[in-house]
Amino acid sequence: MSDLKISPLAPKTSPVLPELAGVRMATAQAGIKYAGRTDLLVMVFDQPTSVAGVFTTSKCSSAPVDWCRKALNSGKAAKALVVNAGNANAFTGVKGSAATDVTAKAMAVAAGCHEQEVYLASTGVIGEPLDAEKFAPLLSELTQKSDGDGWQLAAEAIMTTDTYPKLATSTFDIDGTSVTINGIAKGSGMIAPDMATMLSFVVTDAAIENELLQSLLSDLVGSTFNAITVDSDTSTSDTLMLFATGGADNEALSGGSLDQFKEELRGVLHNLSMQIVRDGEGATKEIEIHVTGAESDIAAKRIALSIANSPLVKTAVAGEDANWGRVVMAVGKAGEAADRDKLAIWFGDIRVAVAGERDPDYSEDAASDVMRRDEIKITADVGIGSGEARVWTCDLTKEYVAINGDYRS
Amino acid sequence: MSDLKISPLAPKTSPVLPELAGVRMATAQAGIKYAGRTDLLVMVFDQPTSVAGVFTTSKCSSAPVDWCRKALNSGKAAKALVVNAGNANAFTGVKGSAATDVTAKAMAVAAGCHEQEVYLASTGVIGEPLDAEKFAPLLSELTQKSDGDGWQLAAEAIMTTDTYPKLATSTFDIDGTSVTINGIAKGSGMIAPDMATMLSFVVTDAAIENELLQSLLSDLVGSTFNAITVDSDTSTSDTLMLFATGGADNEALSGGSLDQFKEELRGVLHNLSMQIVRDGEGATKEIEIHVTGAESDIAAKRIALSIANSPLVKTAVAGEDANWGRVVMAVGKAGEAADRDKLAIWFGDIRVAVAGERDPDYSEDAASDVMRRDEIKITADVGIGSGEARVWTCDLTKEYVAINGDYRS
Repeated sequence: MSDLKISPLAPKTSPVLPELAGVRMATAQAGIKYAGRTDLLVMVFDQPTSVAGVFTTSKCSSAPVDWCRKALNSGKAAKALVVNAGNANAFTGVKGSAATDVTAKAMAVAAGCHEQEVYLASTGVIGEPLDAEKFAPLLSELTQKSDGDGWQLAAEAIMTTDTYPKLATSTFDIDGTSVTINGIAKGSGMIAPDMATMLSFVVTDAAIENELLQSLLSDLVGSTFNAITVDSDTSTSDTLMLFATGGADNEALSGGSLDQFKEELRGVLHNLSMQIVRDGEGATKEIEIHVTGAESDIAAKRIALSIANSPLVKTAVAGEDANWGRVVMAVGKAGEAADRDKLAIWFGDIRVAVAGERDPDYSEDAASDVMRRDEIKITADVGIGSGEARVWTCDLTKEYVAINGDYRS
Repeated sequence: MSDLKISPLAPKTSPVLPELAGVRMATAQAGIKYAGRTDLLVMVFDQPTSVAGVFTTSKCSSAPVDWCRKALNSGKAAKALVVNAGNANAFTGVKGSAATDVTAKAMAVAAGCHEQEVYLASTGVIGEPLDAEKFAPLLSELTQKSDGDGWQLAAEAIMTTDTYPKLATSTFDIDGTSVTINGIAKGSGMIAPDMATMLSFVVTDAAIENELLQSLLSDLVGSTFNAITVDSDTSTSDTLMLFATGGADNEALSGGSLDQFKEELRGVLHNLSMQIVRDGEGATKEIEIHVTGAESDIAAKRIALSIANSPLVKTAVAGEDANWGRVVMAVGKAGEAADRDKLAIWFGDIRVAVAGERDPDYSEDAASDVMRRDEIKITADVGIGSGEARVWTCDLTKEYVAINGDYRS
């Protein structure tokens, strides 16, 4: 949205993503909703490509999410991806699945593949029928002119309320073979269903078969994309897909090389997910919540999300107020075991509470210094066990209310 | 707080609560935190009085909540209640239970009763030690000067960020005996743990024994106080207590008379809980969420709370935007069964979506008219079964962020 100010937490520079053997892309101005900007992305894979996906848990998932789930279950490789911005094709009834059919058919013709080898994603307004006939005729031309050099343009074409395009890349050596992972993402409200929703597409030239690819992605999503929250609202369209073209001609990953690849992939996913948090609607602070001492890692994450989603904690951070009483409140409401009389809380490295009461050595000035930074870490040790989790969020500002409340008026 | 504007949703007039046989009260300026206003309330019961309570589910409950739970479990009748505002006595470690001990002992001496017949509640800032020695000496004098006519002053003494005192009353005839229920409440953030938290005290002159009293309260709390939310944050101090003095000399309640009493009690609890919603921090609209067609009543309530707690739904209402896509999102994220293709949504009596897509007869103008009212009803039928629930909330405005973000600065 061109009228939004760029987030103060935007990265200073955008990485240049290298070409990656086996994938080409192109974008177009299809006029789905926006004027004067691209809103359609096509990725074409030269060879049948391994694919893995993780999708929204919403019970009202969008038509393209339903399509991707079916395509993944078919066990076929991927040959193409089509993404549009401006319309989420969600809550559009039979018209919605008709639109995915039209798009997949046109793309299958363009790429010379089976429909079930085409993956789809849509982001934007909910409940408006998506007129796929409008952009389906473009797919053939886009396929012809696609090339390997379009990552920046690709990231721009999928933006909605994002204030900057989100890209990440990593090139590394595995058993003497150079391998690259490139990723793009969009998302700003997590997830403003009206104009946002989280989408991310990651491509590697590594050779990895489907089952392993899916297990890597499923393993890593919990500590990356599923560890961020902007406003606790879950989109109908959340989609994270990982494609492996095999263009790097590496040997099969196993043992140390698999661990290495997984760490590099974690880095790219973490990088992209943090870019989404830092572009959270109205955000002025990045907040890391670190919970330790919980009954289990799952309990720790539930407590961390309770803190991260608390409007009172988020408004306190916006006001640069080291209000640890609200952290106590959020620990208490999470419903997980916590020993009130052993609870300790830190803002940055300043311990503000210990053993169930205010830290006697606590200095309000030192805590206030921490709160003026634009990256705030809140740690809570709940004194029960060894469960641990980290989640990331942003503050809640008047600007968030303005973006989401004044939107139509 | 004197510097807050009175809520635009405040009641035009405040009811006058009649005296009620068996209870007397008095208030004082104890200087716990505020200057120039009362902050201490004592209620004294002439006879051992039946008592029931419902408390916060927080794992970090306050010292007075712990005290009341123990006192209730002792099975003793109630003889007195002491409430202070300005300090929640929460997360105060051993100092916290020491403060409840001091208060209960002093009140027991003043009222000539056992400590376990004294009930306590505190509301205000978390984590500051409460200096009970400061106000304990006042309790004897307050007991002596207490009278039956102090309901308005009582409601004022327990306020924190409330912009108006909250009172409700009902007098009715049961089997030829006149019976009264009086109630007071406080709460504005639900629950701003810093300066708010929900407290409510309801007294009837009906004769009802403890066990029945507790079952009435436990039955009714789900559809009243536990069906409201301002910001999804749960206080460490939430307390709802019901006292029955027996002063009305009615016959034992059963059958029709019990049903009648329960309906009257529901009315008083609903009235008080709605006054809390309408005093929600920054609120400009009251929102009723009505979910039908769910798998069960519990599932319906979970979906209703998902809608009521969604920042995106609440900011849309603040912006007078009939943004039903966000309601779809909130239904989807609730995790309960919903048939996307049968989902129907209404704003007021305007059906905006039906059978999984936008209602073809939907008029944006008619929906906008509904959104300009200050009481908005949102109905969602999720098309699965016959489960049903209603919850109430308010909108999310920049003023909420200002109250909670600018508080210390």
